[in-house]
Amino acid sequence: MKAVRLHAYGKPPTVDDIPEPTISGPLDILVEIGAAGLCRTDLHIIEGQWAQKSAVRLPYVLGHENAGWVRAVGSAVTNVRPGDAVILHPLVTCGLCRACRAGIDQHCENSRFPGIDSDGGMAELLLTSVRSAVKLQPGLEPVDVAAQADAGLTAYHAVRKALPLLHPGSTCVVIGVGGLGHIGVQCLLALTAATVIVIDRSDAALQLAGSYGEVHAIKADGPHVQRVMELTGGAGAHVVFDFVGEHGTEAEGLAMTRPAGSYFAIGYGGRVEIPTLDLISTERSIIGNLVGTYNELDELMTLTADGTVRLHTQTYFLEDVIHAIEDLEAGRLPGRAILVPNRGSRA
Amino acid sequence: MKAVRLHAYGKPPTVDDIPEPTISGPLDILVEIGAAGLCRTDLHIIEGQWAQKSAVRLPYVLGHENAGWVRAVGSAVTNVRPGDAVILHPLVTCGLCRACRAGIDQHCENSRFPGIDSDGGMAELLLTSVRSAVKLQPGLEPVDVAAQADAGLTAYHAVRKALPLLHPGSTCVVIGVGGLGHIGVQCLLALTAATVIVIDRSDAALQLAGSYGEVHAIKADGPHVQRVMELTGGAGAHVVFDFVGEHGTEAEGLAMTRPAGSYFAIGYGGRVEIPTLDLISTERSIIGNLVGTYNELDELMTLTADGTVRLHTQTYFLEDVIHAIEDLEAGRLPGRAILVPNRGSRA
Amino acid sequence: MKAVRLHAYGKPPTVDDIPEPTISGPLDILVEIGAAGLCRTDLHIIEGQWAQKSAVRLPYVLGHENAGWVRAVGSAVTNVRPGDAVILHPLVTCGLCRACRAGIDQHCENSRFPGIDSDGGMAELLLTSVRSAVKLQPGLEPVDVAAQADAGLTAYHAVRKALPLLHPGSTCVVIGVGGLGHIGVQCLLALTAATVIVIDRSDAALQLAGSYGEVHAIKADGPHVQRVMELTGGAGAHVVFDFVGEHGTEAEGLAMTRPAGSYFAIGYGGRVEIPTLDLISTERSIIGNLVGTYNELDELMTLTADGTVRLHTQTYFLEDVIHAIEDLEAGRLPGRAILVPNRGSRA
Amino acid sequence: MKAVRLHAYGKPPTVDDIPEPTISGPLDILVEIGAAGLCRTDLHIIEGQWAQKSAVRLPYVLGHENAGWVRAVGSAVTNVRPGDAVILHPLVTCGLCRACRAGIDQHCENSRFPGIDSDGGMAELLLTSVRSAVKLQPGLEPVDVAAQADAGLTAYHAVRKALPLLHPGSTCVVIGVGGLGHIGVQCLLALTAATVIVIDRSDAALQLAGSYGEVHAIKADGPHVQRVMELTGGAGAHVVFDFVGEHGTEAEGLAMTRPAGSYFAIGYGGRVEIPTLDLISTERSIIGNLVGTYNELDELMTLTADGTVRLHTQTYFLEDVIHAIEDLEAGRLPGRAILVPNRGSRA
Repeated sequence: MKAVRLHAYGKPPTVDDIPEPTISGPLDILVEIGAAGLCRTDLHIIEGQWAQKSAVRLPYVLGHENAGWVRAVGSAVTNVRPGDAVILHPLVTCGLCRACRAGIDQHCENSRFPGIDSDGGMAELLLTSVRSAVKLQPGLEPVDVAAQADAGLTAYHAVRKALPLLHPGSTCVVIGVGGLGHIGVQCLLALTAATVIVIDRSDAALQLAGSYGEVHAIKADGPHVQRVMELTGGAGAHVVFDFVGEHGTEAEGLAMTRPAGSYFAIGYGGRVEIPTLDLISTERSIIGNLVGTYNELDELMTLTADGTVRLHTQTYFLEDVIHAIEDLEAGRLPGRAILVPNRGSRA
Repeated sequence: MKAVRLHAYGKPPTVDDIPEPTISGPLDILVEIGAAGLCRTDLHIIEGQWAQKSAVRLPYVLGHENAGWVRAVGSAVTNVRPGDAVILHPLVTCGLCRACRAGIDQHCENSRFPGIDSDGGMAELLLTSVRSAVKLQPGLEPVDVAAQADAGLTAYHAVRKALPLLHPGSTCVVIGVGGLGHIGVQCLLALTAATVIVIDRSDAALQLAGSYGEVHAIKADGPHVQRVMELTGGAGAHVVFDFVGEHGTEAEGLAMTRPAGSYFAIGYGGRVEIPTLDLISTERSIIGNLVGTYNELDELMTLTADGTVRLHTQTYFLEDVIHAIEDLEAGRLPGRAILVPNRGSRA
Repeated sequence: MKAVRLHAYGKPPTVDDIPEPTISGPLDILVEIGAAGLCRTDLHIIEGQWAQKSAVRLPYVLGHENAGWVRAVGSAVTNVRPGDAVILHPLVTCGLCRACRAGIDQHCENSRFPGIDSDGGMAELLLTSVRSAVKLQPGLEPVDVAAQADAGLTAYHAVRKALPLLHPGSTCVVIGVGGLGHIGVQCLLALTAATVIVIDRSDAALQLAGSYGEVHAIKADGPHVQRVMELTGGAGAHVVFDFVGEHGTEAEGLAMTRPAGSYFAIGYGGRVEIPTLDLISTERSIIGNLVGTYNELDELMTLTADGTVRLHTQTYFLEDVIHAIEDLEAGRLPGRAILVPNRGSRA
Repeated sequence: MKAVRLHAYGKPPTVDDIPEPTISGPLDILVEIGAAGLCRTDLHIIEGQWAQKSAVRLPYVLGHENAGWVRAVGSAVTNVRPGDAVILHPLVTCGLCRACRAGIDQHCENSRFPGIDSDGGMAELLLTSVRSAVKLQPGLEPVDVAAQADAGLTAYHAVRKALPLLHPGSTCVVIGVGGLGHIGVQCLLALTAATVIVIDRSDAALQLAGSYGEVHAIKADGPHVQRVMELTGGAGAHVVFDFVGEHGTEAEGLAMTRPAGSYFAIGYGGRVEIPTLDLISTERSIIGNLVGTYNELDELMTLTADGTVRLHTQTYFLEDVIHAIEDLEAGRLPGRAILVPNRGSRA
C-alpha cells in the first residue's frame, strides 16, 4: 500500500509502497483511511523536535488525525463491523488503568500514539485498536471530520472544561483563531451564553470568527490587552483560552485574566512566568490542556453531525503530501490540510 | 485606648493612647479585642512593602487576625449581641456584589481589610462590620483562635479546594510546615485518606507534622524532589501545596506534580516559570489561593472546637509588641505570636 | 396609592387606596412599580391554600413578581439610586446566614416573601430591601421582565442545575410548555447542545416551543412515554424537567428517565411515588427545584437583554386586576398576565 | 471442582462436583476462589425473587462477592499474573460503552453479573474478566475482603458521592448499621468531619458504630425522628443515608432531611412517597445508589489495607453453606458470612 514515511529527520517524507498491516491482537481493527489531517506537529516531527520524546524508530508512517472505514476486526471486537465509517481517537489506550477507568483516558498510563510513536494514518490502511474508533453518524464522511480527531478535539476539550466557569454575563477571550481556535469559537457560541472576545493578527481569521456568531473581534496589533480590559469594565475575562501559547500571548493572556479567573494554556512553544504573589493575591488558575477524551470526540462528532461545528479544510491526494507540506509551511493554507488516498471514487 | 500604631515605614510601631472608636453605621460592631495575631505580613507592612498597594494613611493601627467579644452593635445588627465571643474574618465585605452572592466573598468587589488598609485589631477595641463576625462555640476562647482568622483560614481554604482531587490512594505534598502549613497538615489528615508527604528544612517542623498523624516526613536537604518521586512510583503527587512559594519551592513543587495533577500556590515571594509545552503535555493545573470565605472560617472554628485542629501559639501582652516583633524576626518563635491586651482577668 | 388587596379568603381582591409606604430601615428601598406578574399562585392564595403556610394578616397587597424604578433608598444603600430600573428577586434575604453566604440565598434562613407573607407589588409602590434589586440593563423595561422574577427564574434555575448532565448527544424532556416551561425550553436551547423533547397537551404550546429552535414536539395524548423511549433508543432521557408535577406527570416523568438520569421536579400538586428498588437498581436521582438565586436572576436578565430569552405576556392596567384574574381562570391567556399601574406615560 | 449450585427456586442449593471452567476469551481470567460472601440477596435469589430479572438458567453457581488468586489468564491479559491475589468487582463490564469510558462503569451497557445472571464464585474456581480484577495490596487476604466486593463497595460509593455535601459543621444520619451501614459509618468518620448520627433497632449495632469513633447513637424505638431534629436544631440532617429502605425508614429518612439536603436511598424493599410540593418548597434531592465503580473498589482496598475500614465477618467452609444460610436466616450472624473452599492450607 501507499504510505507517507519519514526516513530521516530534516528530510521530507516520501510516499512509499509498503506491505499492508494485518490484524494480530483480539482488539485490533484495520482501517481503510478516508482522510488524514496534516498539521504543524507533523512539521515539527519532520524537523526532529519530537525525536527524543517519541523515540520512534525510522522509517515510520506519519499521520495522527485519521478517519476512514473499518476493513477487518480482531477476534474480540464486537462493537464495530467491516464497512463502518469511523474517526479515530489519536491515542490507543489500555482501558484498564485508573485514568481510563476514571473517564480521563487521555491520561492512560499505557497509551500509544499512532503517527507520533508508531505507524500512523497517512497511508491506505492503519492498524489500530477498536478502543480508538468512534462510529460516524450517517451523513458524516471521513474527509469532513479527520482533523477533528486531534485539533478539534483539543479545542473542544478545553472549552468543555471551562463550561462551569462561563455563566451568562461572563466573558471569555480566544487568543488565536487558527486550526484549533476556530473550533473553540464555534463550541463557545454553541454551549455558552458568555461574551466571546477573539484576538488574532489576521483580519481573515477575525472575519471567520465573526461568521460563526456574535463575537468581539480585536486585532492583535498592540493595545489589545487594554481593549479587553475596557470591554470587561477593567476587570479582565473570566476565562482566557490561549491557542497560541508563545510569542508573548502567555503574558498577555494572564494580564487579561480577572481575579478568580482562569488562563487556559492550549497552544505551546513559550513560557508562563508569573510571581507567586500575583497568582495568590488574585486567586487565579493556570490550566494546562491536553487532547480530549474518547467520549468528548463522540460529543464533537454529534456537534459536527448537526452542523453546529464546521471544519475549514483544503484537500490533497496522499501522493501530493509534499505540496501540502509546502503550502502549510508557506502559510498558503486557509484551513486544515487533509490528505486523501487516491483510490478513485469509493463504491 | 491602647493601640499599636505604625507612624512611619521602616520604624517600629508604638503603643499609643488613642480615642475609642464608636459605632456609626447600621451594620457596625465594636469588638473588645481578646487576641490579635502577629505575622510576617506585619513585618512586611512595617518595612513598607505594602505601602503602595494598601495606600493606607499613617498613622494607623496594625492587626489583621483578630478575635474578641462584641461590646456594641449598630442599629441593623440582629445576629450578634454584646458579650458574644467572635473571631473576625479578615475582610469586611459588602454582601451585595456578585462574588459575595456567589459564596466567594474573599473576592468581594468592595472589600476593606482592617489592619492592612484601615485600623486593625492590635488595640483594645476594633470597629468593624457584623458581616465579619463568626460567633465562637462554647469552649473556644479568642486567645486560642485569633491566628486562625487569616493564617489558618488560608491553609484550610487551599485544602478544601483540593478535596475532590484527593481520593484514597492519592498522594499530596505539603511544602513548608510553618504557621499555615501546620494547619494544612491537620486539615488533610482530618478530611482525606490521601497519603501526606511533608517537606521542611527544620527537623522540629517535621516532628510537629508527625505528631498530628501518619505522614511521610522529608528533610528539604537536596534530594527531596527525587524522594517524592520514589514514594509515588515515579509519577509525582496528585496535589502539591506550596506554603513557601519562594527560594525554589515553585520549581520543585511543579517537578513533584504528576500528570493531571495540581500545584497549589499559597506562599509567595518567588515566581512560577514553566514552558507552556510542559503544562500542556501533562495537563497540569497551577492554582492560586487566597484567604478563605466566611463560611470556611466558620467550618474551621468547628474543627477547632472539636479538637481536630490546634494552633501552636506564643502569647505576649499588647504592650510587649516590640518584643514579639523581635522574637519573630529572630526566628525565636516556636508558634504564632498572639498579642493580648493587658486588662487583667475578664469578668 | 392604589393597591390590589386581599381582604378575605375566597373573595376577590379589591383595588384600594392606601397610604404610601416609607423607608424605615437602612437597607430599604422604595420601588415605583412598573409591572407586576399575576400567576396561578395568586389564585391559590385567594382561595386560601396558602393561608396557614404564609400566616399573613389580611388585608394585604398581592404581587410577588415585580419590577419598576427605585424612588427612594435607605441610609446604608449605596449600589442603587433613585431612578434606576430594577427587577426584584422574590425573596428578601438576610445576607448573613450560611445559605446567603454560600451562594444559595433561595435557602436564606431569615427570608421574607413580599406578595406571599407581606405586602407585595400589585400597587403603585413597594417597600423592599436593596438586597432584592437587580439593576436592569439599558433597553430592558419593567413591563417586559416582571414575570421573570419568579416564573422565569425558577425555570432558569432548574436548567442551570442540570447543565453538567446535558452533554452533546444527551437528551432532555420538558413536560409542560407553560409560563415556566417556555422559558425552560429557551434556556436549554441557548445553553446546551442536548436534544430537547417537549411534551404538552396543547398544540399551541408545542408550536410555541418549536418557534424557539429545533425540538421534538410530542402531544401528551396517550403514548407519549413510549414515544420518548423510542426517540432515546429505549433508554429514556438523561434529564426530565417536570414543569407540571401533577395529574400523572410525576410517574410518567420518572418512567422517561434513563438509568443514571435525573428527574427534576418543578411543578407541584401531585406526588412522587417509586419503589426504593427502582431508584437503586437504576441509580436515578429525583431533584427538587425552588426559585433561583439572586445571581441567577441577574444572569437571566443578561439572557433577556440580548434577546436569547423572551417572555410571552398580556398586559392589563392594575385597576383591571379582576379581568386579568377571570381571563387566567378561564384559560383565555396566551401568555403571562402583567399588571401595570395606570399613571399615564412615564416621563 | 466443588460449587454451590441452585437447582430450583425455593429449594436450598447443593454442593456439587462440576467440571472446572477454562479460559476461552483473550481477556478471561480464571480465579482460584479464596472467599465468597453470602448475603441477603442470595436468600432472595433462592426464593426466586430475581428469577425474572436475572433470567438465569438453572442450575447455576451462586456467589457475587468474590476474592481469590489468579490461576490462569487469557492471551490479551497483561496486567495480572497467575498467583496475584485479587478482589473481583461484581460486574463484568465492556470497557467500550460511554458509561465505562466516563468512569461510571457500574452503568455499563453490556455488563454481566456473575452469581446473579451467570456462574458465580461459591466454588473453587471462577471464570471472569480481567476487567473485574483489583489486585490486593500486600497484607490483604481474600478471606478478609471478599464481602467488600459488593456490600462494602455500595456503602463506600454512597458516602463518596455525598462527600461534597458534608462540610465540617454539617450533619449526616446513617439509618441501619448492618452489613453495608457499618462500612458506611467507618468511611464517614475517615473522610469527613461531619457530625454522624446512627440509628438502629439493635443495641449491639449501635455499640459497634460507637466503637469506630464519635457518633450520636439513637435507638430506633419511636421518637428517633424527633431526636434527630433536636440534635440538628430543628432543621434536619444535610444527608441521610438510608441503608434499610423499607419498613418506614423511607418516610422517616425524608422527614429527617433538611431543606436543600439529600436523602440517599441504598437499602430497598419499600417505597419513596412524597408530594411534589414538599420536594420543591424545600429543594431536597432523593438520590438512588448502586454499587460503586472499579476505581472505588480500588480505593476501598486502600482504606482496608491501611486499617481505616474493617469488615466484621464469620467464616464457614464452602461445604457448610447450608449452615451459613440457616444462621443468616435466623439472625445468628454477628457479621457477614464468608464461604471458604476447604483445600487445606494454601501453599
